[in-house]
This record gives sequence, C-alpha cells and structure tokens, in this order.
Amino acid sequence: MVIVMKKGATPAQVEAVQERLVARGFNVHLSEGINRTILGAVGDRTRVDHTALQAMPGVENVVAIMKPFKMASREFKTDNTLVQVGRATFGDGSVPLIAGPCAIEGREQFIETAVAVAERGALALRGGAFKPRTSPYSFQGLGEEGLKIMAEARDITGLPIVTEVMDQKSVPMVAEYVDMIQIGARNMQNFYLLKEVGKYNKPVLLKRGLSATIEEWLMAAEYILDSGNSQLILCERGIRTFETYTRNTLDLSAIPLVKSLSHLPVIVDPSHGTGKRDLVNPMSLAAVACGCDGIIVEVHTNPAEAWSDGPQSLIPDEFGVLVRQVQAVLQAIHGISGAN
Amino acid sequence: MVIVMKKGATPAQVEAVQERLVARGFNVHLSEGINRTILGAVGDRTRVDHTALQAMPGVENVVAIMKPFKMASREFKTDNTLVQVGRATFGDGSVPLIAGPCAIEGREQFIETAVAVAERGALALRGGAFKPRTSPYSFQGLGEEGLKIMAEARDITGLPIVTEVMDQKSVPMVAEYVDMIQIGARNMQNFYLLKEVGKYNKPVLLKRGLSATIEEWLMAAEYILDSGNSQLILCERGIRTFETYTRNTLDLSAIPLVKSLSHLPVIVDPSHGTGKRDLVNPMSLAAVACGCDGIIVEVHTNPAEAWSDGPQSLIPDEFGVLVRQVQAVLQAIHGISGAN
Amino acid sequence: MVIVMKKGATPAQVEAVQERLVARGFNVHLSEGINRTILGAVGDRTRVDHTALQAMPGVENVVAIMKPFKMASREFKTDNTLVQVGRATFGDGSVPLIAGPCAIEGREQFIETAVAVAERGALALRGGAFKPRTSPYSFQGLGEEGLKIMAEARDITGLPIVTEVMDQKSVPMVAEYVDMIQIGARNMQNFYLLKEVGKYNKPVLLKRGLSATIEEWLMAAEYILDSGNSQLILCERGIRTFETYTRNTLDLSAIPLVKSLSHLPVIVDPSHGTGKRDLVNPMSLAAVACGCDGIIVEVHTNPAEAWSDGPQSLIPDEFGVLVRQVQAVLQAIHGISGAN
Amino acid sequence: MVIVMKKGATPAQVEAVQERLVARGFNVHLSEGINRTILGAVGDRTRVDHTALQAMPGVENVVAIMKPFKMASREFKTDNTLVQVGRATFGDGSVPLIAGPCAIEGREQFIETAVAVAERGALALRGGAFKPRTSPYSFQGLGEEGLKIMAEARDITGLPIVTEVMDQKSVPMVAEYVDMIQIGARNMQNFYLLKEVGKYNKPVLLKRGLSATIEEWLMAAEYILDSGNSQLILCERGIRTFETYTRNTLDLSAIPLVKSLSHLPVIVDPSHGTGKRDLVNPMSLAAVACGCDGIIVEVHTNPAEAWSDGPQSLIPDEFGVLVRQVQAVLQAIHGISGAN
Repeated sequence: MVIVMKKGATPAQVEAVQERLVARGFNVHLSEGINRTILGAVGDRTRVDHTALQAMPGVENVVAIMKPFKMASREFKTDNTLVQVGRATFGDGSVPLIAGPCAIEGREQFIETAVAVAERGALALRGGAFKPRTSPYSFQGLGEEGLKIMAEARDITGLPIVTEVMDQKSVPMVAEYVDMIQIGARNMQNFYLLKEVGKYNKPVLLKRGLSATIEEWLMAAEYILDSGNSQLILCERGIRTFETYTRNTLDLSAIPLVKSLSHLPVIVDPSHGTGKRDLVNPMSLAAVACGCDGIIVEVHTNPAEAWSDGPQSLIPDEFGVLVRQVQAVLQAIHGISGAN
Repeated sequence: MVIVMKKGATPAQVEAVQERLVARGFNVHLSEGINRTILGAVGDRTRVDHTALQAMPGVENVVAIMKPFKMASREFKTDNTLVQVGRATFGDGSVPLIAGPCAIEGREQFIETAVAVAERGALALRGGAFKPRTSPYSFQGLGEEGLKIMAEARDITGLPIVTEVMDQKSVPMVAEYVDMIQIGARNMQNFYLLKEVGKYNKPVLLKRGLSATIEEWLMAAEYILDSGNSQLILCERGIRTFETYTRNTLDLSAIPLVKSLSHLPVIVDPSHGTGKRDLVNPMSLAAVACGCDGIIVEVHTNPAEAWSDGPQSLIPDEFGVLVRQVQAVLQAIHGISGAN
Repeated sequence: MVIVMKKGATPAQVEAVQERLVARGFNVHLSEGINRTILGAVGDRTRVDHTALQAMPGVENVVAIMKPFKMASREFKTDNTLVQVGRATFGDGSVPLIAGPCAIEGREQFIETAVAVAERGALALRGGAFKPRTSPYSFQGLGEEGLKIMAEARDITGLPIVTEVMDQKSVPMVAEYVDMIQIGARNMQNFYLLKEVGKYNKPVLLKRGLSATIEEWLMAAEYILDSGNSQLILCERGIRTFETYTRNTLDLSAIPLVKSLSHLPVIVDPSHGTGKRDLVNPMSLAAVACGCDGIIVEVHTNPAEAWSDGPQSLIPDEFGVLVRQVQAVLQAIHGISGAN
Repeated sequence: MVIVMKKGATPAQVEAVQERLVARGFNVHLSEGINRTILGAVGDRTRVDHTALQAMPGVENVVAIMKPFKMASREFKTDNTLVQVGRATFGDGSVPLIAGPCAIEGREQFIETAVAVAERGALALRGGAFKPRTSPYSFQGLGEEGLKIMAEARDITGLPIVTEVMDQKSVPMVAEYVDMIQIGARNMQNFYLLKEVGKYNKPVLLKRGLSATIEEWLMAAEYILDSGNSQLILCERGIRTFETYTRNTLDLSAIPLVKSLSHLPVIVDPSHGTGKRDLVNPMSLAAVACGCDGIIVEVHTNPAEAWSDGPQSLIPDEFGVLVRQVQAVLQAIHGISGAN
C-alpha cells in the first residue's frame, strides 16, 4: 500500500499515518521529495481499511498494491481447480458444453431440447426455472415445476443439470434438484446469496456482473470460497459498454487474464455475451482459442417460438456443428501447447 | 412496435409476423419499400415478446416504440407522488436532507452524529446496519444491533430512520425498526427483494444500479409499484464510467429526465456519486438547481476514523453549511418557477 | 512513482530498476515485505517513461503518483486564469452565455438568431462553419462563407464570435475571422491541431473528448499551454456511457473537480451534453450551481427547420428565460460564497 | 425510418411530418393507435435529416431503420474486398501478420527488429514515426527520419511498411514512403484526414476509435471510400470500458459482426487491445478463431528498453511462436469451413 501525502502536509500528519500503519503491523518506509512525501507500507492489507487512511488529514491518495483476493488467487493455490459436474470436468483443458433453452417453457419443449443437445454432444443441460426479467410483466419462470422437468430430463439423458437461483430462500430447494447452481450476472454482488450457496456441497457457476470489474468478480468468488465451497466455476457473459449492435460486449481477454490471476476454471456464455445467434459460434471458437474451460450456450428447438432469448438461441443442428468446431479448435490449441 | 424485415424476406415470412401480431390484438400497417418491408404495430406491448418477434424468420430488427413502464410513468399518474417520511415530504418541491454515517459503528458514534445532523437541519437519519462490501473480509455491519441503535437515535432526535436491506429474509425485521427501507445499487435488480419490499406499507428508497439505464431503473420501480407499494423514492447515486478521478459519474441529467418520465420523487446521493468530500456540496447544489426532491449525504463526526467511506463523508459543520446553501439555491429556483 | 516488484523478483532485478531511477535523478526508497518488494521513487516524472519501467524484468506494476499535467495545474498557477472574449470574462465568477445555432445555414438564419440572442443577453455568438459529421453525406458546413456571415453578425451585434476548426490547414483562416477558436470533442487529441492553435494569440475553447478522462483532457490543455497560448477555456460537453435516453452523460462533477486541479476556466455545453431541449435549462442551472464559468448553448429561431441538432436547440425566448434563470442561481451562489 | 408522434399530437402536426417526408420522396404509412400515431417511412435516408424530423412539433421520437453506411456495406458489395500490401493479402481467408516496434527509436533498433520479425514470418512491418502521445513531454517520434529508416528496412527485408499519419499536411510525405497508411484510433473521426487519405492510391488501415460504435467506425470508412479509395482495412484495437486490468477491452465480436455488415477486411491489434504481453498470443488466436483477416502486433528486441509500449511488446521469439500458433488455429478453422 502506498500513501501519498498532500503537498504541504505537516510532519505531524505524516507521523499520524505512519503510526496507524505501524500499529497494524505494517512495515513502513518514507520517501520525501521536494513536492511530496510518500509512504510505502507492506503488510496484511485486510488489517487496515483503504478508505479510512484516505480520510486522514494530509493524505492525498492511497494506492493499493496487492490484489485484494486471497483464496481465489493463483498465489494461494497454484494448480488449476477442477470442478466435476456429471462427466464434465471443468479446468482440465477440456471444453465441456452446457446447452439448453433460456427458460423452461414446458415439459415437452425442454425434454425435446435436452435430448437433442445430449445426442449432439452436450455434457450438461441448462434451463431457467427462475428468470430475472427486467419487466414484472414478463414470464418469470415455472419455478419448482421447472426444476422437476429438469430432473426428468436428467433421468432421460443422463446429463447433469444447471439452473439459476435468484434468492436465498430458494437455494435449499434448488440445491436438491440440480447438479450445479448458477448465480446470475444481476446477483453477482448479492452477498447473502453468495454466502448461502457457499454453504452447499454443490458446484456453483458464478457469472460476471454486467458492469463488474475482474477484481470485483474475483472478490465475489472469494465470498463463496470463504463460505466453504471451493467447487466454483466463473463465467464471462459480456459487459455493458456503449456499443449497441451487440447485447453486451463479450470480454474474452478476461479468460486468459483470470486464468493467470486465479486457479478457478472460466467458461464463457456467447449467447448472452452477444445476443445474436450468428455470433455464437465464432465467439465460442474464439473463447476456446484463448483458453476457456467450457461453454454455456442457449439452444431452442424453435427459436421463433421461444418465450425469451430466441434471437440468440441456436437450433440443435447449429449446436451440433458448434460441438465439432470446438473440438477442432481445441485440438489445434492442444497441439500448440504440446509443441511449445 | 416496428418490425423491420430483412432484405429478401419472403411474403410468407412477412405474413407470419403480421398474423402473430394481429392475433395478439395489434393494429398492423405495412410499408413496402424497394429494399425493405417494415411493419408498424400499435397495441399492448405486454402481449407480445419483443425478442420472440426478433427470432422469427425474415425479421431483421424489432424496435420498441412505447416505454415499457406503466405504473411508474407520468402518463399513468400525472401528479407528483408525495412520499412522507416523518416531517420530510419528498416530491412537493422541498428538498429534505437525509444524513448520517455510512455504517453504524457503535452506539456512541451514531447517536453523536445523529444529534449533530439533527441540530443542523437534517430531516431524516441514514446509517448502514447491513453493509454490501466488495470484500468478505471488510466490516459487514452490526446487523440488528445497528437497527436498535438507529431506533434509539430516532427516539432522541425525533427524526425518522432509513437503512438498507440486502436480503429478502431480513425485510420483516428491518421493516419493524425503520421508517424507510433502502434498496442499494447492487440490489436494484434483485427482483425477489423488490417484490418483498413491495408488500410492506413502508416508504422505499430505490437506488439506481451502478450500470442501470434509466429505463431499467424505472422497471425496477415498476416491480415495487406492481407489488402494491406506491410510497417510492428514486435515488441517483452515480453510474460506472471510464473516469477514475471520481468514484462514479453522478448523472444529474437523470433528475429532470426521470421527473418528466415519471411521477415519482427523485433524490440524489452526492457522497457515493462522487466519492470525494470536496465535491459533495457543489454537486448537491447542482442537484437542487436541476430539480431534485431531496439529498442523502454521508456525515461522520470523525471521517479519519470512519470504518468506511471516510473520504466522502462531511463533518457536521460542513453539513450545516450545506443545509443553508441548499436553502439559498432552492429559494432562487422557486423564485424562477414563480416568475416564469 | 511506485514500482511494485513481482513475487519472486530477484535482487538483481530490483537493483536494475533502482539504478535506472537513480540515474534519472530519482530519490528511491525500498520497502521489502514478505511477499513483495516495492520501490518508492520521488523525482521528475517526465525524466522516465512509466511504461518503460513496467516492461523491466521482475516488475509487476508501476503506479504514477503525481499528476502528469504541469502548466495546467493549480500548483503551477494558483490564481484563476481569466480569459477575455469581447465583454465576456471567463474565470472571474461570472457566467457569460455563448449562444447560436449548431450550423450556419445561411446569412438570414444566422443574423436573425444572432440578433435574437444578443437582445436577450448572450455575450458571444457560436455557429458552425465547419461541421464534424458522422456521415459524409450530411451537411458539412458553409466553410469560409460561414465565417464571413459570422463576421457580419459580429459587426451588427457587437458580440465576439466562436467557431470550431477541424484541421490544421484552416487555422490561419479561421483565426483571422473569429474571436475564439473551438477545438471539438472529436479533435481533443488531434495533437497537431492543438499545437497549431497554441501558436496563435487567440482564446481557445477546448471541448472534452467523448470518452476522455479528466486527466487526458488536462493533458490536451497542456499541449496548447506548452505551445505558448494561455488563453484557454475548457468545456464539458458530456461523455459516452451506456445510457441511451440522453445523447451523452453530462459529467457536471468535472466542473468542481477540474477547478480544483487547474486554474483554467471551465464552461459547460448542455445542448450536446444532453441532446434534449427540455434538459438544457435545468442542466445549465445545475452547472451554475456547481461553479461553471460560462455556458455555450444552441439556439435556433426555428428548430424544426434546423439542418442539424434541432432537438437540442432552444428558441430565442427559451434562451431569454435561461439568461434570467442563470442570473438568479448565480446570485444565490454568490450570496453563499460571501456568507461562508 | 419510423416517426413516433407524441400522445396528443394534433392531426396538423402529423400531417406536417407526413408532407415533409412525401416531399422528399418517401413512401409513408400511418398507424394510428389509441395512445400514439406512428409513421413508417421508406425511402432514401440521405434525403432527410434524422434530427430535423425529431425537432418538428408533435414528434416524440425518430427511429432509423436502415444502416447509414452504403459503400462500406455488404449490400453494396457482396464479395470480400481484398487488399494487397506486398505479398500480404487481407480478406482472402489468410491471416497476414504485421509486426514491429511501437515507435522507431533509431536505425539500429528498427532494422534489427525488422529483420527479426521478417525471419519469423511477418508479412509487413509496422513502426511509428509520428506518435500520438497523451503528454506533450513524451517522445513524439522521429518524423521523416523515421520514415527513411522504415524505407531502408523495407529494402533489407523486402517487406512492405505501415505507419500512422496524424495530420493532413504530412499525408503526401508519408504516402511517398510507406506502403500502407494507418489512421490511428484518436483520429478515426478526423474527417479532413480521412478525406485526404481517401485521395491516394494507397492502402489505408483504419483503426476503431477508443469509444467508437461499430456504426461510427463504418461511417468513418465511408468517408474514405466516398473519397475514392477502396483499399481499406479496418482494425479493432480495443474500446474504452470501466475495466482497469487491461488497457482497453478488445471487442472481438466486432470481427464477425463487421464482416457480416461489410465487405472490408478486419484485422486486430492485440497489443493495444490488451496492453499486456501475456495476453497478446491468446487474444491473437481468439481473433483468428472468430475470423480476423490479419493481426498487427508490437515486437521489440528489448521491451525493457523500449521508449513506449514495452509492457505490451513481444520479443522476436515470442512473435515466432505466435506465427506458428496462428497457422495452427487457422488450419483448424479452414478445416471447419471446408467441412460444414
């Protein structure tokens, strides 16, 4: 941590800052220049609040040096975390595909889609039983009925199921039905929900918030890890920018970046990340090429009749093409890694 | 709603779109050009899903024309909604100030601040008992103990109290203690929480999300209104941009804009909106000048010792100055409104 | 400047960094912690390149401490810079209004508007002779013919004239006609143009770039100041965000912030900043309340017939109202400053 | 184009809008609903100004339907434009690499790097002779001396050379030396510069602006095409977002999106797009996987001594690895395209 004193800060002000840091076990060094005094402080960042220092008299600025996440960091755990969901392993260099419709609209629709994606190579099923909708007048999901349909689809296909949970109260019920619990982008900083899913022995899929920095995303992961659950997968799903041709701007640089900062697997959601069916396959391949650990994609047997997200949903045959393409690019990437 | 067909869309595709719209009660007009056919559809937007149309074969784009919010709109209710909290009225042209520390750190600290701001003209007390913190290692709030301290401060000062609730489960408890329930920026789209506070007969303060559009903010308000609670105040608290000198970018144009779109009162939080104490007073006055219905501001008797948000907290005397300045600008604005 | 070494950086790597800094006259202090070594370096930041250090082996991060602008800073010049344009003084606590149409469409239109705004209290005339248009098919301005019309309007009204110059080559011609040269948002980092206008003894109005940070904006000012021209006014005109209800997001916090960082006057452009006529007056008053040094506003005698920017243009009578409102708020603000 | 009238717009207002459109050759259809009248207008969008309509009395909103770019669009030209620079062809499915240092620092440094990248598979050389620097105190480039060094490197390596031009005046000189002229991100909307390079029979590399939408980028391309130069390559180089771990957010979805909207080749700059050496290779491969037509990358023989952009520069051997990796991924992608 570096504390920059204001021009004209008094020696007493400098001393007060120094004392507070030393009292909290920091090792402090002073650099006095003609215009400014700066203090370098090395110690346990959790023992002093960044903003508290900034509010001290004579302080101009406090610059954090160390990353604030611990359990999520590569320094804490060097090896990749592997998360097993059914036969899919996330984090081992493979790229499992999770597929299914945005929302579970009914038994027939979901089972049909589930069978179609299972036949084409999906390793897990996605589907929304609880839908976060901007409008209270939009379809909000089938709730527990949807979970039952998912469970039936699992029985039929043998594939594990993933669904979003939006509130603390529903976590026990959802956890009973599904194989992986998803935290959606809008709830990335719903800290009570993070702590709650942290208590279960069940893989969690944590989506990046719409305008969350990578640091905030890893700090949200830290909440789950700190609550005791280390079966955690991160999912990049696009951030909010000024661009309007795409629904979001898929930040693929987050994949290699997070993988260098953290041991957690990172997957990508090109459906929400772009909002356009035509971009799903190219962006999936791009994600594979830069090292993603999996893909979650929306598939609907009849997008034109989908109750939500039709424009970004693949049909099953497009998904089948995607599965083959992903394998082709993955082989090339593995060849590269082996060679260099 | 306007549906733009792709160049080369077949007559059958155009007809299919038209039929679906007519079946849902829309009045549809066709415009055929050399390059494109476009369909204008006038009807009840809630009866057809925007994205479902977009996924139909031959459709290039669907443009929503009507605003999606209803109960929050000026068209639904022409007169300003007035929300009464203690002696403060929000929405009647006055500018009540809500003041207090970021977090309740202890009995003495909070009571002292409460008395100080009450003496200087605050009309309501703010304070955090449950704190949404980026890091699980940061102080998370005193919980119910904090609420009890707030209640005691109310008894002493006679001022109503406002606090944030972060999860559905805590709503009943919080509602029992406080006079206004705050939904924080991170929970603006926590739809279960919105529905929950919508069930209580208690004013709600709804902060704008960090990267929420004005439309999404009004849709979040719609969730609360639709759940039966119309005592609702909106709070602009800064949005996330690329600028780093300020904590957020306070979007003051949201004030006159929302007041033209909606009947709900809009207040401003210049403390979180800027993150810098020196900017709190100028931005408060700016908010008054463009028509805000209130101000919520962080005050701490000793910002350098505050456990959080010290750099953006006023000391009580600065708050006293702010109260007088706000009145001076408000008088000028009222003179203007009277004159023109 | 603070240099953070990577975990595991070798002593030789630390030494190499230290040596380079010392060789450039920096005073360097080492802080060795368990996990990291950090170097605090105090000296002349222009003597070493930030990114060059960052590329040295073993360096994790370099954090700049000092602000990079010099001549634009308050530390360089404590007193407000006053810029005189005709009878308007920018920087002395008054709020001169600059008014006129977006583009000069013809002699009659411009003269008529000029007379109308002069009668209602404008202290300078704006008008575009060279128009930066997104589309090559849009009206690009009348060029020198427009400048002649402006000069005639100056003769008639006695008001100084301001216009945008878009390229280096046109600067001499524009400088001959006008009283203040405007650099538009799209050219804020057109460094050749900045250097060119820096050579003239003519006030310059420098608009903030669409996505420029405040630091970049002040660095652009630095180019002009460093080229020898200190008659410089900054203009906040809205930044690009995800919000779509407004054309841009007017960042009013930039006003008090820049005025604390710099001695230069700062004015505001609420027309481009919002894109909506109804928001021009409230946002102008907000700007006055937070300390702006002037306002530049689009006025058109018939916005519905304007060739560009009609939706954000006031009619002359609305402008007259604005002039009176600005004075009322300004008086309130002066009363406050006097009292405290 | 769709014109939405305000609730309560008078028949005369509707008629006035209709008349103006018809007078400009539009085919207009009226849809009257209970709350709103909307007009659908099909015709030549360049014949009426969008904002002029928006300023007409009674008009609430005008929605553009057609894309505003013409010559840049796929509808204008179905086949891919191929741009030949030396032996590199951009747009034919291959992925030529352009490599070299950020700035030309001296003869030896540049020649050495040029030879190193030529040996490892670069098909063109990049290097900055005129540098757009945020600070006037930073190294601004060697100017014509730099161009001479580049020309010498071309003689030695046989590779074509690419450099940025920052102002209209320098275009003739730059055009004489180089094989492709680059327009940098900060000048994407320097319309005079665009028109100037449009006059030369020389390939142009047009970088996307820091906060330019895809539509604005294609409109900037339109300026060059409309000026007579169709040898145009677009370059995605990252956009400005709130994320701070990367220098910019590389928007790879722009690649398949622009390639569907336009016939122009699109290349990617992962060096500026990320600002981090470790991200250059993964993001390059991602770009190949989603269909880019080339890569421009910064290479320096000694990044720690580079005068600018060291942290994002590869060393020649890393570049050699990149060349092989790109070919491997490209083969996989070609295999896919052939198969499906």
